[in-house]
Amino acid sequence: MTNSPILDRVAGPRDMRGLTDPQLRTLADEVRCEVVQAVSETGGHLGSSLGVVELTVAIHAVFDTPRDKLIWDVGHQCYPHKILTGRRDRMNTLRQKGGLSGFTKRSESEYDPFGAAHSSTSISAALGFAVGRDLGQATGDAIAVIGDGSISAGMAYEAMNNAGAEGRRLFVILNDNEMSIAPPVGAMSGYLSSLSERGPLAGLRAVAEGVESALPKPVRDGARRAREMVTGLESRGTFFEELGFDYIGPIDGHDMDQLLQVLRAARSRATGPVLIHACTVKGKGYAPAEGSADKYHGVAKFDVASGVQKKTKSNVPSYTSVFGEALTDEASRDVAIVGVTAAMPSGTGINILQDRFPARVFDVGIAEQHAVTFAAGMAASGLKPFCAIYSSFLQRGYDQIVHDVALQNLPVRFALDRAGLVGADGPTHAGAFDVGFLASLPNMVVMAAADEAELTHMVATAAAHDSGPIAFRYPRGNGTGVERPERGQVLEIGKGRMIREGGSDVALLALGTSLQDCEAAADALEADGISVSVADARFAKPLDMRLIGELAGTHRTLITVEQGAMGGFGAMVLQAMAGAGMLDKGLQVRTMHLPDRYIDQASPDEMYADAGLTADDIVNKVLETLGHKTDVVDLASVLRKT
Amino acid sequence: MTNSPILDRVAGPRDMRGLTDPQLRTLADEVRCEVVQAVSETGGHLGSSLGVVELTVAIHAVFDTPRDKLIWDVGHQCYPHKILTGRRDRMNTLRQKGGLSGFTKRSESEYDPFGAAHSSTSISAALGFAVGRDLGQATGDAIAVIGDGSISAGMAYEAMNNAGAEGRRLFVILNDNEMSIAPPVGAMSGYLSSLSERGPLAGLRAVAEGVESALPKPVRDGARRAREMVTGLESRGTFFEELGFDYIGPIDGHDMDQLLQVLRAARSRATGPVLIHACTVKGKGYAPAEGSADKYHGVAKFDVASGVQKKTKSNVPSYTSVFGEALTDEASRDVAIVGVTAAMPSGTGINILQDRFPARVFDVGIAEQHAVTFAAGMAASGLKPFCAIYSSFLQRGYDQIVHDVALQNLPVRFALDRAGLVGADGPTHAGAFDVGFLASLPNMVVMAAADEAELTHMVATAAAHDSGPIAFRYPRGNGTGVERPERGQVLEIGKGRMIREGGSDVALLALGTSLQDCEAAADALEADGISVSVADARFAKPLDMRLIGELAGTHRTLITVEQGAMGGFGAMVLQAMAGAGMLDKGLQVRTMHLPDRYIDQASPDEMYADAGLTADDIVNKVLETLGHKTDVVDLASVLRKT
Repeated sequence: MTNSPILDRVAGPRDMRGLTDPQLRTLADEVRCEVVQAVSETGGHLGSSLGVVELTVAIHAVFDTPRDKLIWDVGHQCYPHKILTGRRDRMNTLRQKGGLSGFTKRSESEYDPFGAAHSSTSISAALGFAVGRDLGQATGDAIAVIGDGSISAGMAYEAMNNAGAEGRRLFVILNDNEMSIAPPVGAMSGYLSSLSERGPLAGLRAVAEGVESALPKPVRDGARRAREMVTGLESRGTFFEELGFDYIGPIDGHDMDQLLQVLRAARSRATGPVLIHACTVKGKGYAPAEGSADKYHGVAKFDVASGVQKKTKSNVPSYTSVFGEALTDEASRDVAIVGVTAAMPSGTGINILQDRFPARVFDVGIAEQHAVTFAAGMAASGLKPFCAIYSSFLQRGYDQIVHDVALQNLPVRFALDRAGLVGADGPTHAGAFDVGFLASLPNMVVMAAADEAELTHMVATAAAHDSGPIAFRYPRGNGTGVERPERGQVLEIGKGRMIREGGSDVALLALGTSLQDCEAAADALEADGISVSVADARFAKPLDMRLIGELAGTHRTLITVEQGAMGGFGAMVLQAMAGAGMLDKGLQVRTMHLPDRYIDQASPDEMYADAGLTADDIVNKVLETLGHKTDVVDLASVLRKT
Repeated sequence: MTNSPILDRVAGPRDMRGLTDPQLRTLADEVRCEVVQAVSETGGHLGSSLGVVELTVAIHAVFDTPRDKLIWDVGHQCYPHKILTGRRDRMNTLRQKGGLSGFTKRSESEYDPFGAAHSSTSISAALGFAVGRDLGQATGDAIAVIGDGSISAGMAYEAMNNAGAEGRRLFVILNDNEMSIAPPVGAMSGYLSSLSERGPLAGLRAVAEGVESALPKPVRDGARRAREMVTGLESRGTFFEELGFDYIGPIDGHDMDQLLQVLRAARSRATGPVLIHACTVKGKGYAPAEGSADKYHGVAKFDVASGVQKKTKSNVPSYTSVFGEALTDEASRDVAIVGVTAAMPSGTGINILQDRFPARVFDVGIAEQHAVTFAAGMAASGLKPFCAIYSSFLQRGYDQIVHDVALQNLPVRFALDRAGLVGADGPTHAGAFDVGFLASLPNMVVMAAADEAELTHMVATAAAHDSGPIAFRYPRGNGTGVERPERGQVLEIGKGRMIREGGSDVALLALGTSLQDCEAAADALEADGISVSVADARFAKPLDMRLIGELAGTHRTLITVEQGAMGGFGAMVLQAMAGAGMLDKGLQVRTMHLPDRYIDQASPDEMYADAGLTADDIVNKVLETLGHKTDVVDLASVLRKT
């Protein structure tokens, strides 16, 4: 085991405030080792956490957390922070069921004053705390730490624009590693690079006046050179200064002395908003991470010595790659097809299209609002844009879908990866709400793929659907291993499919990959003598009312099953059935969906068990509805054994 | 009538391209008169339209619309554009049923390539067209015209960040009048002012090199002075240049010569994105507008000579003012209450709180994403924020509601004005989807006010509800005239109220102001011998299952009525009823909601008639459901006469 004499004495940030600067330096080294060790056993966001080790130590040493509120943007770089704030002994439970979240989380610690996971929220939240302080709430300073990718999003800009005008004391630390998940894009990214290249402490203003002479000589020289450059050439300030911030930087985010001095100076002198520009290296201090293209952004368990990840190989392709390949296939036959991603080229599989047709893929950065309307503009020009955004991130572009796409009936294709529960990333990343927020919109077509062959067909269907917007959802992870068609077929819009006609007791109407659970449940139920039909809705909108009418007319019980929230597929099926009078004469109808609570992280299977959406749960729901038993817990597995 | 010899010869922009510059100047004057005349008869967005008269003429004269795509941000400044693009003879139908939209609209004209109404979408859409052009679509240049308020929003920043990096030929014209609906806020606004103060053409760069000598002498001198200032003091460019744009400006947006010369130079030389900063005066050229505080942003019909608006006075207060007064009353007893608005202090009634407690109101500008998370941060600090945003604009903050508010269960209060259909502003402003997108979220409480007394109670209820987020919706316009309580009472969460217990035939379950329609329908039905109960759900979440069970258990028919889209209240009532087995034995259940299409502008009553949501429609739905008649059209009014 690692030897960590100083870390062993730090139960919490209060213990850090008695340490000398050299001890803090050593502490950072110990924390770095601890992070590598911990993540090697659990997997997780390694690169980002390694990049902020010194920053984390310095902030907790200088500021009075938890009275001062430290808010990590996105929150995936919080492992050093968790180690230093009383959660060291639970780091081995990271991202697992019942364990620590992979992000900051209010319910987990008083040191997590504002949870995160989606990007660019930290400055808004920090400003909220600053106002609270100024209006008499028992809270101290507010410090937001935000990456260069995140600060490029519109929301962060809105927050800086407001914070600059408010003029309240507030600290924003820009953690500039020139990497988000992929290399950052956009003009702002280039601008930040130009600032970084100005040399250390180039823009140093009033706050850090006294710091310069205390700096080690090479840095001091650089600062002086930079200051001359400033004096000679610049009367106007940086972008951040235009917005009303004091700008300090760039500083070396791994130089503990520099960090401590700048943070101390800023803390003691700031009267308004301050932006500290710290340059860091993603994966810092762990050679395999620093040497990797993605800086070990998200890793599986790995061997510490070699850095080799223990990724389980699968013979079954991921939905993501199936999407990317199917889209590339369609694009090879239709030059009007283009792809849009918001900073997730490989996460969405759009990189497969990008490799083949680089001029036809647009990575707009963390900018989902723009991504959607940009796609709408392309559609209006005659192109066929596929806008590939994770279900939960598409929430950021919701108004644009309503106002720019659906209302104008423009044929934008939305590819929603990560629909349903996603595992270790937990509730913030769950794609729970898309069916409801999309299918309620006029003109929108909404599909859900039951397996990878269906996904291939849906890509073809979307490519062919030129009369309005269309969306298709599919889960995180690997497909079912079903045979994939050479080429996707265009599905009839609004037509589901009967999977098995099994009799008169129960009809299960599945949306998306719930189909597999329905089939497993049907097997178990039929072994118990209950006759079950199973259908795949394929479309959440428009609904296949003929199929639904047939199921309702020939079964005692109809149950819809979906991996999404209430107000989604099942709700709209009921609404349509009620309107058609299908409920007038009595039908045992139930909707199975995610429960009305957020589901904590675990494996996807565990999360669905928690949510009550497994094949077993379907069996139990059927039996309960038919009145057979009401307290069955795990009948399905019993049945399977017989 | 106005004399307009040149305008009379302009059937469309093509006719403008043969005009001399002096003729174009005269044309602008004629268009200005026409706009004043037209809006005096219809009401509408006067101030913004008057501010862009010269700009509109100049753009159409210089660019090759409709092949070149002119995209007006928000689109409410489009009246001169409509007059010049073949819609002059229909200006008297503006914002009325069957008439011209008050915004740009694709279905209305080929000169409206991308519709709008929500702000800050134009640059994204224009970039989409620019990409389309570069990838071979039959489209020319793309020109976005965006106001200084709109360009401050995060979405516009995302678009500029992307456009600057893309480097494609693209024109953004910043229409800087230092006014949005209210004076603009935020640091960016101050920055733009500082640019304006630099004098004409201060930042003139390569694109306009040849223009300077052609300028009239006073402008030329100003430009030279400014250029020296630039050379002497600036090595770095404007914010827009940092983002990769060529910046031209500021120019006088009412000086036709300057506009034509700059636009011609830009059109002939631009290779990448260009930002032209034009300073304009809202309400320009019409003294009553220029002299008014809001520059006649939105006006009723008015007398041209005096400028006096023909506003109909009402003895009944608006829901907006009832909200503002009730909130101020609560805030007078609880110092933790604060208000947040996104650039709509008076539109939301938050100005009433602001007048009383200015330090407790935060206008963040057009920045709904930030507004929501900023409120979440304040709530986390212990404050009690009321976030007052129109229902349709809150769509912009949807992800923040999911991720920052609901998931963290923070007590942010959402006041949703303009719920349901809103009249002249049309489908873009309809608050149609809020119940669905809010009630599907765990932890969220959703209320709808049936009248202004109920709204007062709901403000009190929200103030008292400190255990999680809560939202309440209410319509645009005046209340019912019901007596208002001196002080709001705290309602029991999730408890509806029986309004009239009328027997066993039909139960009408209303959400919000649909209650009045239900009561009118009940009167009509009872005159025909049909017994009707009416209940007010008050809560769309949590549902009052006891009330619903009673209604379901004692009536043949249950109909939910709401002023919102499918997937909302009715859908969730059905989902809950199905889960509780209330549908098993048969119940004639129907949900009445907005139809699955967008409703064009008209008066609110006309829009609800179009939507099939009037008292008459409820009567017909009841009769149809009971099997009495199926082709009744206007029975209710017949019954009322008897």
